[in-house]
Amino acid sequence: MANGVTLESLRQSLIRQEDTIIFSLIERARFPSNSPTYNESYVATPTFSGSLVHSVVKETEALQAKAGRYANPEEHPFFPDNLPPSVVPPYNFTEVLHPPAASINMNKDIWDMYFKKLLQLFAAPGDDGNYASTAASDLVCLQALSRRIHYGKLVAEVKFRESPEEYEPAIRAKDRDALMKLLTFESVEEGVKKRVAKKAMVFGQEVTLNNDDNKGKYKVDPFVVSRLYGDWIIPLTKLVQVEYLLRRLD
Amino acid sequence: MANGVTLESLRQSLIRQEDTIIFSLIERARFPSNSPTYNESYVATPTFSGSLVHSVVKETEALQAKAGRYANPEEHPFFPDNLPPSVVPPYNFTEVLHPPAASINMNKDIWDMYFKKLLQLFAAPGDDGNYASTAASDLVCLQALSRRIHYGKLVAEVKFRESPEEYEPAIRAKDRDALMKLLTFESVEEGVKKRVAKKAMVFGQEVTLNNDDNKGKYKVDPFVVSRLYGDWIIPLTKLVQVEYLLRRLD
Repeated sequence: MANGVTLESLRQSLIRQEDTIIFSLIERARFPSNSPTYNESYVATPTFSGSLVHSVVKETEALQAKAGRYANPEEHPFFPDNLPPSVVPPYNFTEVLHPPAASINMNKDIWDMYFKKLLQLFAAPGDDGNYASTAASDLVCLQALSRRIHYGKLVAEVKFRESPEEYEPAIRAKDRDALMKLLTFESVEEGVKKRVAKKAMVFGQEVTLNNDDNKGKYKVDPFVVSRLYGDWIIPLTKLVQVEYLLRRLD
Repeated sequence: MANGVTLESLRQSLIRQEDTIIFSLIERARFPSNSPTYNESYVATPTFSGSLVHSVVKETEALQAKAGRYANPEEHPFFPDNLPPSVVPPYNFTEVLHPPAASINMNKDIWDMYFKKLLQLFAAPGDDGNYASTAASDLVCLQALSRRIHYGKLVAEVKFRESPEEYEPAIRAKDRDALMKLLTFESVEEGVKKRVAKKAMVFGQEVTLNNDDNKGKYKVDPFVVSRLYGDWIIPLTKLVQVEYLLRRLD
C-alpha cells in the first residue's frame, strides 16, 4: 500500500478506464476514416505544421498544459517539448511514484499503434469533412489509452512495495525477461480481454425501448477491442512496468 | 426531403446523438464537481480571462475553428466572436438550411443550463485537482448538447418542406405559440425520455463477466438524463425550431 493506493484500488480504476476507452472508440467511430485529417500535405499554411491531427493534438495539449493537466503525474503529453507552464495554483497530488518514473513516456509507441494499426480496424472508410472533430475525437482516444498504459507505473510501484524481494534480483541484473515473466498472469489477461469484449457489446449496441433487435451489430467490433487489449494495451502496460522497475532502485 | 435528408435520417442521427450525450455525461462524472474549474478568481494571470473552463473552452474552440470545425453548419461555437478563420480547404457540406438559420445560436442558454442546473445533478461533490481534464470533459458535453439542440434547424427545415402550408400561416403571423403547438408531440417526447433513461442504465452499469451484480447503481442517474431531455434538450430544440421557422420565409 502506497499512500492509500492499493492493488485493489488500481484494479478498480483500470476497470473504470476500460469504459472510457471503449466510449472513446465508439465516439471516434461516428466519423469515417477521414484521411485528410492525417495527410501532412493537406493543409499548407505556416500556422500548421504537419497533419491536421498533429496540430490539433499539439495545440490542445499546450492549452491543457497551461490549465494544469500535466501537473497530475498520471497524465502524459504526446508532445512534451516546449509545453507552456501551468498557470493554475499547484494541487497537492498524492506522491506515489519513485521520481525517476517521470522520465518514462510511451506515447510515441501509443501514437504509432493508434494511427498505424488500430484506427483502420474500427473507422469505416469514407470522408464526411469533419476533420477537426475527428482529430479532437482521436485526441480523446489517445489520452484514454495513454492514461491506461502509463498506469503501469502505479501498478509496478504497488507490486514492488508489496514484495520488493521478488523484484530486486531481476532489477539489479537488469533482466527484462525475468521482470516481464514476474508481471505476466495469463489467466488475468484473458479475463480482461473477455470483459472488454463484453463491454464493447453492451456499450456499442443500439438500445431501443423494445427488446434488442440488433444482435450481433455493434458500433465497434468487440473483437477489435479485445485485440486492442491483448496485442497492445496489456503488452505496453507491462513494458511501462518493466521500465519503471528497472529504475526503481536508482 | 432536402438533399437526401429525411425526417427518418434525422431521427436516426438524433437517436445516435443520445448515446454521445450519455457517454459524455458518464465521462464527466469520472471527476467530482471540482469547483476551482468554475471559479473566476481561481487563476489570476493575464493569459487567462475568467474561469479555467471559460479559457479552456474558448481556446479549444479557437484552435478547432482554425482546423475547420465550424465550416460544418451543424457545429456552433460557444464563443463565436473573433474566432480565427479555417486554414483547411473548404469541404462541400450539404446545403440544407435556409441561410438566415446561420444567425441562430442558443449556446448561451445551453451554457447556463449546463453549468447552473445540470452539472450539480450528476457530478459528485469533491475536488481531485484535475481541473484541466474536467474542463475538457465539460467541453465534450457542451458540444454534444449544442449539436443535438441545434439539430432542430434541420428538423424544422425538413418538416417545413414536407408541408409548408401547415406552417406558413403561423410564420406570417409570427405566432410562436401556434408554431410550438405544431412542433409538440407529447407521446414522442415521452418515448425519448424513456429511451434515454434506459440508455443511461445500459451504458452506466458496471459490466462484469459474471451476471450484473450492480442493479440500481449507475454512473449517472437515469432520472437525471430523462430530466435533461424533458426539461432542457427537448424544449430548447423546439425553441430552435420555432426561431428557424420564424425566419423561414425571409
